[in-house]
Amino acid sequence: MERTLISEVKKFLGKRVKVAGFVNSLREHGKIVFLDLRDRTGVLQVVLSKEMAKNLGEEFVLEIEGKVERRPKGMENPNLETGKFELKAERVKILAKSYPLPFDVKKLSLSLPKILDWRPLTLRNEKIKAIFSVQQVIVNAFREAAKNLGFFEFQAPTIVSSAAEGGAELFQIDYYGKKAYLAQSPQLYKQILVSVYERVFTVTKAFRAEPSLTTRHLSEFTSLDCEMGFIQSWEEIMDVCEEIIKHIFERVNKECKKELKFFSVTLPKLKKKIPKIKLAEAFEIISKRTKKEKTGFDLQPEDEREICEYSKEKFKSELIFITHYPAKKRPFYTFPDPQNPDFTLSFDLLFRGLEIVSGGQRISDYKMLVKNMKKFGLSPNEFRFYLQAFKYGMPPEGGFGIGLERLTKQILNLKNVKEATLFPRDPKRIDLLLKK
Amino acid sequence: MERTLISEVKKFLGKRVKVAGFVNSLREHGKIVFLDLRDRTGVLQVVLSKEMAKNLGEEFVLEIEGKVERRPKGMENPNLETGKFELKAERVKILAKSYPLPFDVKKLSLSLPKILDWRPLTLRNEKIKAIFSVQQVIVNAFREAAKNLGFFEFQAPTIVSSAAEGGAELFQIDYYGKKAYLAQSPQLYKQILVSVYERVFTVTKAFRAEPSLTTRHLSEFTSLDCEMGFIQSWEEIMDVCEEIIKHIFERVNKECKKELKFFSVTLPKLKKKIPKIKLAEAFEIISKRTKKEKTGFDLQPEDEREICEYSKEKFKSELIFITHYPAKKRPFYTFPDPQNPDFTLSFDLLFRGLEIVSGGQRISDYKMLVKNMKKFGLSPNEFRFYLQAFKYGMPPEGGFGIGLERLTKQILNLKNVKEATLFPRDPKRIDLLLKK
Repeated sequence: MERTLISEVKKFLGKRVKVAGFVNSLREHGKIVFLDLRDRTGVLQVVLSKEMAKNLGEEFVLEIEGKVERRPKGMENPNLETGKFELKAERVKILAKSYPLPFDVKKLSLSLPKILDWRPLTLRNEKIKAIFSVQQVIVNAFREAAKNLGFFEFQAPTIVSSAAEGGAELFQIDYYGKKAYLAQSPQLYKQILVSVYERVFTVTKAFRAEPSLTTRHLSEFTSLDCEMGFIQSWEEIMDVCEEIIKHIFERVNKECKKELKFFSVTLPKLKKKIPKIKLAEAFEIISKRTKKEKTGFDLQPEDEREICEYSKEKFKSELIFITHYPAKKRPFYTFPDPQNPDFTLSFDLLFRGLEIVSGGQRISDYKMLVKNMKKFGLSPNEFRFYLQAFKYGMPPEGGFGIGLERLTKQILNLKNVKEATLFPRDPKRIDLLLKK
Repeated sequence: MERTLISEVKKFLGKRVKVAGFVNSLREHGKIVFLDLRDRTGVLQVVLSKEMAKNLGEEFVLEIEGKVERRPKGMENPNLETGKFELKAERVKILAKSYPLPFDVKKLSLSLPKILDWRPLTLRNEKIKAIFSVQQVIVNAFREAAKNLGFFEFQAPTIVSSAAEGGAELFQIDYYGKKAYLAQSPQLYKQILVSVYERVFTVTKAFRAEPSLTTRHLSEFTSLDCEMGFIQSWEEIMDVCEEIIKHIFERVNKECKKELKFFSVTLPKLKKKIPKIKLAEAFEIISKRTKKEKTGFDLQPEDEREICEYSKEKFKSELIFITHYPAKKRPFYTFPDPQNPDFTLSFDLLFRGLEIVSGGQRISDYKMLVKNMKKFGLSPNEFRFYLQAFKYGMPPEGGFGIGLERLTKQILNLKNVKEATLFPRDPKRIDLLLKK
């Protein structure tokens, strides 16, 4: 007999089927036992005799044959998709046993470190599982939106030969006895590919040896990266970013109703354009609102939250672009603002108090790029591979990267970005805590 | 005026448009110059006065306004999609200049090392670019097929804490002063996720510190990985693998006609089932055919070619599953053959003389898995995170990984897997040759 998926069981009313899955729960009720069986498509109530249920326990993996029946009137469960039906078990086969569970997986009341220590088990919790269903929809929606806009997908390399973007937060690899590093971003490669495919995107891993433990940093994260040539103005980059974010929100809204409900969250509709303000202006606004003088090269976490509050009040927008970051704060390839070259044509997109996107126009002119490298103390010779793309004709271009886990966190209103990462890595943890 | 993509130009016959792209070629013809302009959608002939073309060169990036006209009778170019049309240029704007090209990019006659040294530039060659168009179709087709079969997509981690699969070919990372490694495969994580989502897939990077330079190895490659629970038999894993490969071939056949033609290759139709033979049997066949005695734990490159020749002759199949590899040769989690536990329920899929897939059933029983780890000299305590998934109920399961670059290489009949990698890494190269 072939296995029937639980979502299909309703088509077999009055017939015999074989289902398979995990024991979600067991409830004794007089002479019978109600067993909720869980497979990847849903949960189904199974009715067994006490004898049949004798050796079973939670999370056991079973194969059950039986007859699909309609539940008695008044016994239906509106919270289950299969709630009108149940399976009268005739034969139960144990595919795998489970040890007694160390805690209640269905009603988790663990701290985040414990949840992560027990990740393989806690992922079976419906609410935790829902986070990654949403994440999958985000990734799909990103790809779909990018493809619709003519972007070409590529596989970015992870191992790089030099500290290309000049950052200190690099992981070093022993590469056949030589030094190499883990890519901080696919930046240089996506730029190279603009000279080949004009518009490119990738879903790739990026690495930051960020030593501090925060709720917003990961040592390894997933970057949704876009880069586009032949831009008419740098605002076009923000327009494309906005269109992609909008598409992601629409798809999540449509496909993740249950999941959003779980977390009691809704998503903005993005009917109007996302507002834009310059960083300098943002500092002024924050200073006025907090009565503390704020300046600097970048927004601090509390500043990001404050300016998002302002955006909600002033523009009724949960998203806001902050633009024109100082040239000193941005990498060498960032395009200077022609009106004031101390600033750049760059932006961050903040959502509900957190930066989720970073982007901008890049320097596409070969000579200007070489000059700026030198200004940053970098050696053009080290970048001669990358520079080929510019030496032989590069259109005006720019792009952005979306942090997948941060976006997931903000959509679901999670406290820590690690909750939105299947297997998060931080300075103290790779799966389990690292030995001291 | 808005930019018109070259593929859209035919809709504007008799009208003025603005196109933008790279100078593919320039040909003087009396008083006029024919310029082939290339954008991401195609190539268009532009007619300019000598004066207008005066300062232009190959790979210059241009914006050209002009009128779309029908080419004179007899002057049409059947090899171009836009071959019936041309643009009479009225205004040319240089967006970026190019230095004189170091070689002819259109007709490459460089060695592979040179092609890779000049990767950003050589990628502009139409035939090289075509490789990655095919690769993108493969990745998409893989995802599509997996989703259609109920597989859930996930992001696999890259940094791992231990040499999980017991291999020696690991890259070591300095992880905040501690030792960590680059994942050899997403194996342990995809297995964990079978206990959560039943069927999972990922497109991820895998790393092998393989010290030798061959035509089939990469230090970093892209793995198309599937893992599935609730299997009825281990043959089911091969069936799913076959279905996915079939879908990939169908999509490539349909969407990459031009590219396949470029490389003068065709793809098998997979109308019949892919034949399967046991490794021991394969050795017998090879010994008989080559008159050299062949035994061992694995096929050598020449053996893979020989057995594929045999498969073509005997089964008229360019694909063949080799099954039942010795337990000693496969990782600790491989399911032993109940009929002879010295062998395993494992398989490789060979295509045109090269292994492109490796897979098999896994040990899903917790106690059996712990026992096998010990047999392999591994410490179950080191694997306690992974083992959670098995301790609390794991269905019978298995899976496989497809090497993306190898599959691309075999489809297009390329000589070296590096040709099928945008930015290949090997012991001597990360973009450019490494310094000694």
